[in-house]
Amino acid sequence: MKLVPNKFALLAIILAGLSAAQAKDPLPSWNDGAAKKSITDFVAKITTEGSSDLVPREERIATFDNDGTLWCEQPLYFQLLFALDRVRALAPQHPEWRTKEPFASLLKGDVKGALAGGEHAMLKIIMVTHAGMTTAEFEQIVKDWIATAKHPKFKRPYTECVYQPMVELLAYLRANGFKTFIVSGGGIEFMRPWTEKVYGIPPEQVVGSSIKTKYEMRDDKPVLMRLPEMNFIDDKTGKPVGINSHIGRRPIAAFGNSDGDQQMLEWTQAGDGARLMMLVHHDNAVREFAYDAESKIGTFSDALMAEAKKNGWTVISMKDDWKTIFAFER
Amino acid sequence: MKLVPNKFALLAIILAGLSAAQAKDPLPSWNDGAAKKSITDFVAKITTEGSSDLVPREERIATFDNDGTLWCEQPLYFQLLFALDRVRALAPQHPEWRTKEPFASLLKGDVKGALAGGEHAMLKIIMVTHAGMTTAEFEQIVKDWIATAKHPKFKRPYTECVYQPMVELLAYLRANGFKTFIVSGGGIEFMRPWTEKVYGIPPEQVVGSSIKTKYEMRDDKPVLMRLPEMNFIDDKTGKPVGINSHIGRRPIAAFGNSDGDQQMLEWTQAGDGARLMMLVHHDNAVREFAYDAESKIGTFSDALMAEAKKNGWTVISMKDDWKTIFAFER
Repeated sequence: MKLVPNKFALLAIILAGLSAAQAKDPLPSWNDGAAKKSITDFVAKITTEGSSDLVPREERIATFDNDGTLWCEQPLYFQLLFALDRVRALAPQHPEWRTKEPFASLLKGDVKGALAGGEHAMLKIIMVTHAGMTTAEFEQIVKDWIATAKHPKFKRPYTECVYQPMVELLAYLRANGFKTFIVSGGGIEFMRPWTEKVYGIPPEQVVGSSIKTKYEMRDDKPVLMRLPEMNFIDDKTGKPVGINSHIGRRPIAAFGNSDGDQQMLEWTQAGDGARLMMLVHHDNAVREFAYDAESKIGTFSDALMAEAKKNGWTVISMKDDWKTIFAFER
Repeated sequence: MKLVPNKFALLAIILAGLSAAQAKDPLPSWNDGAAKKSITDFVAKITTEGSSDLVPREERIATFDNDGTLWCEQPLYFQLLFALDRVRALAPQHPEWRTKEPFASLLKGDVKGALAGGEHAMLKIIMVTHAGMTTAEFEQIVKDWIATAKHPKFKRPYTECVYQPMVELLAYLRANGFKTFIVSGGGIEFMRPWTEKVYGIPPEQVVGSSIKTKYEMRDDKPVLMRLPEMNFIDDKTGKPVGINSHIGRRPIAAFGNSDGDQQMLEWTQAGDGARLMMLVHHDNAVREFAYDAESKIGTFSDALMAEAKKNGWTVISMKDDWKTIFAFER
C-alpha cells in the first residue's frame, strides 16, 4: 500500500506539469519551429516593459489577409463560389442568361468556361450578384448563404474552413493588446456579416474591396443602395492605401499568402521598430491544397518567395509548421 | 470648545456630500435640462441589464461630426484656415500665384475675395496645400501647424477651441461601453494627427473626406503619395456611406450641428431600438458665435430645425444647455 499513492502522486505531478505547459501554450496548433518562434519572440519583444522595443498598446496593429491566410481559397475564392450559387438562384428571374455569357456556361455547370472570359466575365458575375439591392438585403443574403452552403471538398460550412493556427494567432495577439484587422482583396460586405463570430474581428476592423453605395429614401426609410460600380480594389498596391484609409496607422505585424499581399508586408516593414511579416505557404496537398507560383488563385510567385528571403519575411509551411489545419480535424 | 468640532464636522459632511455629487456627475459642464437629461436617460436605458432596450457593448456605436460639433468652426473652418496659412508659407516657391486667383487675392490678405470663386476656388486652395506630398509628410505639416497656430478670436491653439461639454460626453459614452467615432466633412488626414490626444478618438475611428493616394517606391522606401484628386466627400448623403464603409454598423447615437449632418441622424434613427440624435445650435454670440440658417459655414437651416422637431431630435442650446463652452474659460 505504500507505493501506490506515491505512484499516483508522481503521475499527478507529471500531469499537472503537462497541463500547465499546455495551458501556457497560446499556439497549440503550431509545431515548435522557426515560424512559431518568430511569433512568440516578436510578441515578447514588443510587450516587455522597459524594453526599447516596447510598442504602446494603441500602436499594436496587426493586419491579416483573408483568402488563403485566414481561411481556405480553393478550389475557388469562396466569394466567387457564393456568386456562382447566387447566379443559379437568380436564374429563373433572368431567362436571358440562358444565351448570354458568362451566365450560359455557368448555368450548364461549366464553371471553367464561364470564367474563361477572365476578369471581365468575373466582374459581370460579381455585379449581377452583389449590386442592385440595399446593404441590409445583401447582408441577409450573405448570412443565409454562409449558414447553409458547404465546401465542395471538406463538406463543411465555409466558416469551418478557417485555419485553426491563425485563429489561435489572432487570439494570442489580441491577448497581448493588439487590434486585429482583416485587409483583404475580398468584398468588405461579404466578410463583415460573419468575421466577428468566426475570427473575433468586428465589422469596423474589416478592410476590403467595395462597390459604390448610394443613400436614398425608399418608402420614407433611408437605405444604402449597392451600385454596379467598383469603388475600391483592396489588393496589391491597394492594400497600403486601404490600410491608410481605414486604419490611419501603419501595422507592426502583417500576414498574407500571395502576391496580392507583398505591398502590405513592404508597408508594414518600412515602419520604425520591431516588425513581423509572415506568408502562409500552401504546401499540404493531403490535408488542404498545394499550390503556389502556377496557381491563378492565391498566386505565390517565385518573385514573392525571393522578396520574402531578401526582406527576412517568415514563410509558414502549412505542412511543417501547422500541427492542425482545421478545427474539425481533431 | 464644544461647538467648533461640530461645525467642522458639519462642514466636512456638507463638503463630502458636494464632492460626491460632483464626482457622480459625468457631465459637469452641462446645465440640468432637457438636453442633458436626454443623454443620461438614453445611456441608462441602453445599459440596464435585463432591460428590453439593452444594447450589447459591441453595438454601442456613437458618431460625432467635428466642425461645429466637437470644435469651433468660425470664422472659417479651421482646415481652411490651415490651408490659407499653407498658401502663405508656400508662396515664395510659387511666384506665379501673385497673379493667379484665388492665390493673388489671398496673398494680398483678401480672404473674402479669394473665396468669392466659391467651391472651385476652395478646391484649388485645398489641392495645392493638401496634395503633392507623402502621407507622412502631410501628417508632419498638420502636427506642426496645430502645435503653433492660434485661433483669431480666442488667441488659443485650435485644439483648445474644443467644446468641453462634448469632450465630457465622449468620455461618458466610452465609460458606458461605447466606441466613439468622428464622421466629419473635414479631411480625414487633417484630423487623425491630433484626435486621439484631444478627444480620445484613435485614427482608426476617424471617418472624413479624402483625396486619393498612390502607393509607390521612393528611394527604395514605400510611400503613399497624396494626389490632387478627390476620393470621397463625407458630407450630407456621404455620411451614411462613410459610416457604412468605415464602421459597417449603424450608430445608435449621432451628434451634429448643421445641414451636413441630417442624413447621418436619419440613418441612425432608422435602426431598431433606442436611439439618440442631437444637434448643437450655435446661439451664444457672447461666449462663442451665433449663427444658423444664414451662415455659409455650418448652416443650420430652418428645414433642418423642422426635421429635428418632426423626428424628435434634441437641439442643444449652447447658451442654455452648456455651463462651460471651452475648458480655458474656467
